[in-house]
Amino acid sequence: MGEEAGELSSAECDTLAIVGVGLIGGSIGLAARQRGIARQVVGIGRRQSALQLACERGAITSMSTDLATGVAQADLIVVCSPVETIPDLVAQVAEHCPHSALITDAGSTKQAIGAALDERLRADQATFNGSHPLAGSEKAGVANAQADLFVDRLVILTPTDRTPAAAQDRLQAFWKGLGAQVRCLTPARHDSVLAATSHLPHVIAAVLAAATPSDFLAFAATGWADTTRVAAGDVDMWQQILRQNRDCVLRCLDDFAKVLNCLTRALERQDDAAVAEILTLGKRQRDALAD
Amino acid sequence: MGEEAGELSSAECDTLAIVGVGLIGGSIGLAARQRGIARQVVGIGRRQSALQLACERGAITSMSTDLATGVAQADLIVVCSPVETIPDLVAQVAEHCPHSALITDAGSTKQAIGAALDERLRADQATFNGSHPLAGSEKAGVANAQADLFVDRLVILTPTDRTPAAAQDRLQAFWKGLGAQVRCLTPARHDSVLAATSHLPHVIAAVLAAATPSDFLAFAATGWADTTRVAAGDVDMWQQILRQNRDCVLRCLDDFAKVLNCLTRALERQDDAAVAEILTLGKRQRDALAD
Repeated sequence: MGEEAGELSSAECDTLAIVGVGLIGGSIGLAARQRGIARQVVGIGRRQSALQLACERGAITSMSTDLATGVAQADLIVVCSPVETIPDLVAQVAEHCPHSALITDAGSTKQAIGAALDERLRADQATFNGSHPLAGSEKAGVANAQADLFVDRLVILTPTDRTPAAAQDRLQAFWKGLGAQVRCLTPARHDSVLAATSHLPHVIAAVLAAATPSDFLAFAATGWADTTRVAAGDVDMWQQILRQNRDCVLRCLDDFAKVLNCLTRALERQDDAAVAEILTLGKRQRDALAD
Repeated sequence: MGEEAGELSSAECDTLAIVGVGLIGGSIGLAARQRGIARQVVGIGRRQSALQLACERGAITSMSTDLATGVAQADLIVVCSPVETIPDLVAQVAEHCPHSALITDAGSTKQAIGAALDERLRADQATFNGSHPLAGSEKAGVANAQADLFVDRLVILTPTDRTPAAAQDRLQAFWKGLGAQVRCLTPARHDSVLAATSHLPHVIAAVLAAATPSDFLAFAATGWADTTRVAAGDVDMWQQILRQNRDCVLRCLDDFAKVLNCLTRALERQDDAAVAEILTLGKRQRDALAD
């Protein structure tokens, strides 16, 4: 392996290890293989059946149910597991992967994970640099993985003062190699932004779906379907995200409730101008987004 | 025309008039022509340019900016205009169309329109039977019209005790002829259901979009985009809907706020079971809808 390293472009690695081969992990494997980013991809997970499917789909080239074995030869390890399990898994990876390896994750929260790992990772271990690919779906599992899932999507990296510049460059090159665009934010800023753009929408979609009388669902059309789509996401995964980013989400809920209350009071008092103001702002912000 | 009437299937009409040839009106015209439901389609509107475009797109076969002229020969007239303008337009249509004609609309509210027309239409005039096709888009205008917009979509008809059975049958056959499925509800029930399945989602999407800090929009991904999609809809059109269905929408807002408050308090006190209950109910209701 060593003698081949010189041939690798900055985006490439010899052995990519993916811990948790579901929708995100599977898509990373598919993209890395199809784009020639990794010579081999080791899938690591607890369920042999999921690893087998990942293999059949071409997302991984080998598999292991043992973390230590799976990461032993890896240059880059991506931990794609529910956010609350990430610190433990990254710490275990760091015990068994080469010192020169780079470890990242794909978690939707960053501050709690970063803080836990700052305490747990030693200076003589592999570097951890958090990633959050803003891609995914309410459809889980490697069966739904796509090689182009990250193309033109944003991946937020959350390096800290302690992250070596070389590790940051390497991680950026990796995600760009999968077709993504990359931005860097601090873990705190990431969690504050994502609370508003992802975690709050999930909560609101779930509340809207839950508040709909079930005998009205037969009349739900595309508007209801779009507005509630993300509520189909895995409940346990989302509870973990909400627990890890609780303070930011609660602040967003407070902001949302204030605007909602404004609109409700305006409708009550038939204040057309006040209703128009909120609807117009909402439209302007939505229109600012292509699609 | 009379001698040809015997050749017409129940879904067909000789002359279909469409008042307001935008996304919905244009799609009705396209579908009626492509499916052989109408021998000719008269587009009626104020703006010559929109009528011209409707003609070029094949949605109408002739055009008129004069309502009286446009409906004079019509068997079926569909008023596709913002909800607050529907009663006046239907009353004008009834003054000028044949007594044997059937008038319907495509409005998103039904009670206020029905009540206004109950007072205004005389027994010697054409019959009005309300329709609401649950199809559409945040994209307006005949440029976005599609011949298959109604295929497998639901159209709610709101006949009353005074609507002749023959008119109900004729209207059902018309919409089924465009590919739609048809359900009948009372105007009151329609407005109560649609408040929850369409009008509330619009308000919530607008509030969510409005409450998002604008400097975070660069990080908005598919979750935010889906959840806020309908907020891009025309503000004036939606204000009219909210004014006409204010009481029902306010009741829905109250129900929504109660569930939202439950979830917020549960997150505050870290009550995982209570959070899970709402997320699980939301997921179950969303999963009940095939995409």
